[in-house]
Amino acid sequence: MIICHYALQKLLMPPYPMALAPWRSSLARALHRNRSQPHSRYLQLATTRPDGSPANRTVVFRGFLAEGDNRLIITADARTQKIAQIQANPAAEACWYFPQSREQFRLTGQLAMVDAQEPDSTLQAARQSTWQGLSDKARQQFTWPHPGEIREPSGFAVPAPSAAAPVPQFCLLLLTPCAVDHLELRGDPQTRHTYISQADGGWQHRNVNP
Amino acid sequence: MIICHYALQKLLMPPYPMALAPWRSSLARALHRNRSQPHSRYLQLATTRPDGSPANRTVVFRGFLAEGDNRLIITADARTQKIAQIQANPAAEACWYFPQSREQFRLTGQLAMVDAQEPDSTLQAARQSTWQGLSDKARQQFTWPHPGEIREPSGFAVPAPSAAAPVPQFCLLLLTPCAVDHLELRGDPQTRHTYISQADGGWQHRNVNP
Repeated sequence: MIICHYALQKLLMPPYPMALAPWRSSLARALHRNRSQPHSRYLQLATTRPDGSPANRTVVFRGFLAEGDNRLIITADARTQKIAQIQANPAAEACWYFPQSREQFRLTGQLAMVDAQEPDSTLQAARQSTWQGLSDKARQQFTWPHPGEIREPSGFAVPAPSAAAPVPQFCLLLLTPCAVDHLELRGDPQTRHTYISQADGGWQHRNVNP
Repeated sequence: MIICHYALQKLLMPPYPMALAPWRSSLARALHRNRSQPHSRYLQLATTRPDGSPANRTVVFRGFLAEGDNRLIITADARTQKIAQIQANPAAEACWYFPQSREQFRLTGQLAMVDAQEPDSTLQAARQSTWQGLSDKARQQFTWPHPGEIREPSGFAVPAPSAAAPVPQFCLLLLTPCAVDHLELRGDPQTRHTYISQADGGWQHRNVNP
């Protein structure tokens, strides 16, 4: 059982600088080693549906919220099912496999949504800059007909929306990890390290059996 | 909300032949198109922890249980946390991304465990033949020290166990999908098809907005 110290993490959040978690250097190394493959930034995000069953889909890592901030940025369309799931239960686990270096990160934590109504100006600025960093094609998808509904024959050939300001259905999901499990398949035996956030804001690091 | 017709699926199970689901040909094509990459057989399996939060990890697809059977085989170590999770809640969702063909399958369903105590002789035979099909190295991992516990300095350099009969901690997990969501990122606009199992044993197929 993983106990997340969210109350304290909130106290430690910026503007008070957040300590860079010890798993960050391993993740940065994995991203660097696998940088030649665009899909190395794809990870699988699991959430829980209201009926208690799990949901799981591929999402794109859009960077960390800020230098020294451990929150991962993912983009989402407010019309998709995961938004309602997260509002009912913000618990999430991302599974990120890097094929080239053959290593896996499991990031356990909670998701927070940053939508058009977000009052925090720093988070709203992050929403805007992430939107501006997307390709025209990626931005265009947010204006397509309602995801998951019966296929509409038209409505896809719309002009790309303005890069300046996000459309209302564009959201950020911020994943705050409270536990990270890093498994490296290379090596005999394999190596596995776990990191669990502590009440004092630090991380407990363990070398465990793979 | 996805309603799974398990009671009826059970009635339709072999020895009465199970109809090959319509999503099977798309999945077979994806496996073929991505066959040059060994990690195209890796998928991310989400389950729910007893506290209601999701868990997510990479597993290896070991084939379907039999010709004409829609149950996917995954191997597992009985000592890992997912076993207890599945016993409390068998609901699962696998997310399978194929990098080369840029397509994703989400397989929603239930997991059943086949362990050393399994009384069904057909399932026990599948457990044995899957064990025999593993590499020596893969089999050896089931004899390593307890997964997830503090790293032991020794206990990894054990001889590979016999290929003839599985060790007691070797289990199969069988995933019976009751809904499949197939998204192809190639194409403008992208294509997305959903398949939901019906009370009559058939599947409802829909072409939906990506």
